[in-house]
Amino acid sequence: MHLSISSRYNARMAKPHPIITLLTDFGERDGYVGAMRGVMLSITPEARLVDISHEVAPQDIRQAALILSSVYTYFPSHTVHLVVVDPGVGGKRHPIAVETPRGRFVAPDNGVLTYVWLAEPESRAVTLDKPEYWLPSPSYTFHGRDIFSPVAAHLAGGATLDDVGSPLEDPVMLSFPPLSITPEVIRGEVIQIDRFGNVLTNIMHLKWLDEEWLELQPIMASTDLEQPVRINARRARVTSGWHNFQGIHQTYSQVEVGQTIALVGSNGELELAINQGNANKVLGIDVGDTVTIHL
Amino acid sequence: MHLSISSRYNARMAKPHPIITLLTDFGERDGYVGAMRGVMLSITPEARLVDISHEVAPQDIRQAALILSSVYTYFPSHTVHLVVVDPGVGGKRHPIAVETPRGRFVAPDNGVLTYVWLAEPESRAVTLDKPEYWLPSPSYTFHGRDIFSPVAAHLAGGATLDDVGSPLEDPVMLSFPPLSITPEVIRGEVIQIDRFGNVLTNIMHLKWLDEEWLELQPIMASTDLEQPVRINARRARVTSGWHNFQGIHQTYSQVEVGQTIALVGSNGELELAINQGNANKVLGIDVGDTVTIHL
Amino acid sequence: MHLSISSRYNARMAKPHPIITLLTDFGERDGYVGAMRGVMLSITPEARLVDISHEVAPQDIRQAALILSSVYTYFPSHTVHLVVVDPGVGGKRHPIAVETPRGRFVAPDNGVLTYVWLAEPESRAVTLDKPEYWLPSPSYTFHGRDIFSPVAAHLAGGATLDDVGSPLEDPVMLSFPPLSITPEVIRGEVIQIDRFGNVLTNIMHLKWLDEEWLELQPIMASTDLEQPVRINARRARVTSGWHNFQGIHQTYSQVEVGQTIALVGSNGELELAINQGNANKVLGIDVGDTVTIHL
Repeated sequence: MHLSISSRYNARMAKPHPIITLLTDFGERDGYVGAMRGVMLSITPEARLVDISHEVAPQDIRQAALILSSVYTYFPSHTVHLVVVDPGVGGKRHPIAVETPRGRFVAPDNGVLTYVWLAEPESRAVTLDKPEYWLPSPSYTFHGRDIFSPVAAHLAGGATLDDVGSPLEDPVMLSFPPLSITPEVIRGEVIQIDRFGNVLTNIMHLKWLDEEWLELQPIMASTDLEQPVRINARRARVTSGWHNFQGIHQTYSQVEVGQTIALVGSNGELELAINQGNANKVLGIDVGDTVTIHL
Repeated sequence: MHLSISSRYNARMAKPHPIITLLTDFGERDGYVGAMRGVMLSITPEARLVDISHEVAPQDIRQAALILSSVYTYFPSHTVHLVVVDPGVGGKRHPIAVETPRGRFVAPDNGVLTYVWLAEPESRAVTLDKPEYWLPSPSYTFHGRDIFSPVAAHLAGGATLDDVGSPLEDPVMLSFPPLSITPEVIRGEVIQIDRFGNVLTNIMHLKWLDEEWLELQPIMASTDLEQPVRINARRARVTSGWHNFQGIHQTYSQVEVGQTIALVGSNGELELAINQGNANKVLGIDVGDTVTIHL
Repeated sequence: MHLSISSRYNARMAKPHPIITLLTDFGERDGYVGAMRGVMLSITPEARLVDISHEVAPQDIRQAALILSSVYTYFPSHTVHLVVVDPGVGGKRHPIAVETPRGRFVAPDNGVLTYVWLAEPESRAVTLDKPEYWLPSPSYTFHGRDIFSPVAAHLAGGATLDDVGSPLEDPVMLSFPPLSITPEVIRGEVIQIDRFGNVLTNIMHLKWLDEEWLELQPIMASTDLEQPVRINARRARVTSGWHNFQGIHQTYSQVEVGQTIALVGSNGELELAINQGNANKVLGIDVGDTVTIHL
């Protein structure tokens, strides 16, 4: 993130406070996350613990990967991001850590770091194979507390990637629902519903060139796209099932309250919504449904 | 808040830690709040981020305004309170900041600061019109991340209200459900149900004078009340629909477990409850229902 | 907790940051916890506030006691644990504080500290009877904000147990669902369901001796057990109603996805689960159901 103000009171950034973010599917009820927080503050007492979400659907690796990709770039680059969505705990999957120019990451090697790995080409990974950085006698069912949290805390407190693990060439990657792009259409699918019922799609990396023109940028490996695709936002039409949206807009209030709208969401993704309403419930559009931009 | 103990270990308060509270309707699941936290820690790394609630009903400005009014006075006066319940994002509503003797506030200008503005007569407001204190290229749909969070962080880090905006005379105010007060009755309505099913009303600012007498204080603009009204708590009768409560009490355990009770809640409001039960579900009393004190 | 690494970057632990954990049944929606956070930061501005859970079922003292017992040992011993599940607020129950070698605790005297008190024989308790450490004019219905939070903050900031209260001999203890142990069986019951639908029992303090043998340790007063009981984990059979589980395992992935399994959970308790599934929903096993290990 480029900060627009650099005044005298930002001089404090010189000596950064360690930050550890937490993203899990543990929920907030059972105290699992509380135990992780205790482990981390025992090892690195001055660490800032910052929650991303603990309400990832149980064992939904893709949802966690998407949330992570929309958040990590807003944190300082010295941040350690701890991600524990770990259906394979205690089995053969390895615990890993990844270092990028925009932050370090600790997670099971199950694809949850896919979007980070693809977006940050200058990354490297290690397998966490140094038990001296874990809690003693780790349990078989809660590596979040016994392996991942202590490693994240040690990294935040000064340990290096090579202290905590050994080089790993190819972390596990999720496969992508493919985008289909022709001169007439861009076709993707719904990948997430947010708390407001807004419908988020995998047609991502849309960028406004001006008031009328959008560009679909070839950032991720989700397409064979080599050149950006230009979209006339006013003339484009978006369909999903029998629903039809005229134009791609900038924000909800460009239509009346209660009206449907297609727009570019806050992370650059094509989004279907109802102004001050719940598009998921009212329109019945859900995860996995096809969404098409007619150019 | 007046602290009852001033010992040597409070001398540390001399140099206050910046505090930013967060109150939104974003929920905790999608990572929206996580992105805001990252933005703020990037700008003011030493800020304490303190959650008030992220479970405000989507776009329920009044609920957020009520929660805020019950909480902000418990924080140190150097706290910055960030409130993002923003159904009009990207439209014509302005982003604003308000300074009071008991804290500063950053929010959309949609009435969410109504109770603060009325309770703090020595307040002043600015419109946030200095993009150099925002993230570059703010999105059209997530000003919480791109405008409000950076401004709150800059304020917490040392910026002044005049750095971040230009004077605003009349922030938007919510209209109040009116109290009706006669020599025989005080009539209001239910405005909130809490997690326990306790029923909270807009008959607020009740204060115990002694074991028997209550006073309804003329603090807010919700009534034409100029003099306080005295209420004999033992003899008063409270009704809502066909439900009848004898007396106004101090606490739940003054009746048996499972019995209904009218009492003065922890923020001075008339409250209807069941001792260790859920009055909302059992009695069917809900937001908008009329509640009457018979004097 | 014994930390496995003591390197130069742990020298910072010398001067500990005050930590206060929060465990309540207030939920996160209504701002009640927010007010408590404000009170504590007003008194001890440098305190770290760390959430354990606010989603304890309303007034479920036993659930809070169990969560607390699974978490507090992971925190540094200078931590103050604030527990507010308080159905008797404003009535005759006393507010108390407890000091143990592994942390201090502030709570209502209603049994919520039972497991801590039994696990930490070198504990002592006080009744909180020094109003100068409370907020002035405490409400009758929200001692979490007006009594417990200020006392926790003062303890974290330097006050001693004797500053804030007077000695108390016998804190209230919960009664335990008894374990029945014979040469043929160990019989207990389900006491908790976690977010994943895993079924947790009161057959606790199981410890692996090797790959095959488990030991049930006589730690708590829940049994008359004086000697540890050895269990052959491979040959043992677990039943609950008509459900049958062969062997006691170490982790979920020792069976196929979708298969049932009995295992030792992350806090040493007998747990019934489905690998990557929800045992509570699928099997219909719930809190209070009998669970038997056939030796």
